[in-house]
Amino acid sequence: MDAFIAAAEAAAEAAGAAIRPLFRSPLLVEAKGDASPVTAADRDAEQAMRAVLAGRFPDHGIWGEEFGADRAEAEYLWVLDPIDGTRAFVTGRPLFGTLIGLLHRGVPVLGLIDQPGIGERWIGARGRPTTFRSPLGGTPGTRACAGLAAAELSCTSPDMFAPGDRPGFARLRAAARRVTWGGDCYAYGLLALGLVDVVAESTMKPWDWAALVPVVEGAGGRVTDWAGAPLTLESDGRVLAVGDPGLLPEAIALLAG
Amino acid sequence: MDAFIAAAEAAAEAAGAAIRPLFRSPLLVEAKGDASPVTAADRDAEQAMRAVLAGRFPDHGIWGEEFGADRAEAEYLWVLDPIDGTRAFVTGRPLFGTLIGLLHRGVPVLGLIDQPGIGERWIGARGRPTTFRSPLGGTPGTRACAGLAAAELSCTSPDMFAPGDRPGFARLRAAARRVTWGGDCYAYGLLALGLVDVVAESTMKPWDWAALVPVVEGAGGRVTDWAGAPLTLESDGRVLAVGDPGLLPEAIALLAG
Repeated sequence: MDAFIAAAEAAAEAAGAAIRPLFRSPLLVEAKGDASPVTAADRDAEQAMRAVLAGRFPDHGIWGEEFGADRAEAEYLWVLDPIDGTRAFVTGRPLFGTLIGLLHRGVPVLGLIDQPGIGERWIGARGRPTTFRSPLGGTPGTRACAGLAAAELSCTSPDMFAPGDRPGFARLRAAARRVTWGGDCYAYGLLALGLVDVVAESTMKPWDWAALVPVVEGAGGRVTDWAGAPLTLESDGRVLAVGDPGLLPEAIALLAG
Repeated sequence: MDAFIAAAEAAAEAAGAAIRPLFRSPLLVEAKGDASPVTAADRDAEQAMRAVLAGRFPDHGIWGEEFGADRAEAEYLWVLDPIDGTRAFVTGRPLFGTLIGLLHRGVPVLGLIDQPGIGERWIGARGRPTTFRSPLGGTPGTRACAGLAAAELSCTSPDMFAPGDRPGFARLRAAARRVTWGGDCYAYGLLALGLVDVVAESTMKPWDWAALVPVVEGAGGRVTDWAGAPLTLESDGRVLAVGDPGLLPEAIALLAG
């Protein structure tokens, strides 16, 4: 596992070096968040990560948002999202992240969330406590929460739900104490720091969630689909994360209706 | 003006020193974002700012969110919000800000937006170009935008509108290219960097907007109420900011319905 963690960190460094020059760059401003410079940052960062990982583990599979899958049937599969939170990136918010997940026979065993602008990094590895480093402070570990009525809910956008998922989310939102919008992967990182209690989203791809599972679970939380089942490559894109596992039954009941 | 700017910077330093120790602190985590530690940070920061400003300008008025107004009828009135974006603060997002505005006979002449976590600072002063400093980069100056159909809209939360303001915002949102949620004062700062084109919100108090006007206008944008009139202490809490002043007629027409 130490070699996997070192590789993930090296890949994150390579991605950050590709992304930082384009964050808030005049190129991006001129393009008004349009395809070209974001796509360039996304593609350059994914290629840089692929080069690092393929160099160290030539037998592993790699599946990235931009360039698809190589050796997807390998025992170990790296799942990459160079810029999770494109809207945050193009509007200059430093809450986007680079996501690096490692699946072992489909099970997430390692996850890294990197915020290359601020210089924050969460690392979760199966069987180990999640680590976090940041110039802004924060300590890994989810917090206890007595019930949804006391819970801080977080969600990237009310617009990101498939139509059929909106009623379930509306019930969850009505039951929660408060909702804070925006954040993408960053919201799951904040949950792993005990600052957010619940995140529920849908239309998530494996590269959106693979890295989040070990980070949240290594901090004491749980990540499942909306029915409470572990996420797999066959999951339907509905993701529920809780800091206090005791919140799961109530959240699942509301999401299911 | 140089003395006012120096005082605003000194006040921001004092506020940041009060706020930073509580951001993501275990106290805050335990309290689950509840009143006490946030209130402590808010109150300590406002008192620190008041001490700086009253020491330098004993004749000026000071109006803060936490401690109300002293000498509100003075020719110069400082308007303070120690933590704009309480939800962002309590959930650990470094997008909250300290706002310091200076009104001269009711007209905003100086504004400072400070992000004490990341170490970012926008300063707008009437008749001068807005300045910005940040370890993450970014250049002051709004960008041109051909029309709302091309515009990045930003808004803190769909829940912050008075009921009567929701239809107007819904029309604006439908006309905009995209909406990004979250951000509080930070969204106006991003607009002043040419990364966001429009922000529209309601239920804003003077301490929410006083600092934003000089920052945005010194970067080439405009801040008005939803009818296009300049903001005054008698304004109704509806705020519209555009990076390209050419967007104003279209935005006002949609907000008015």
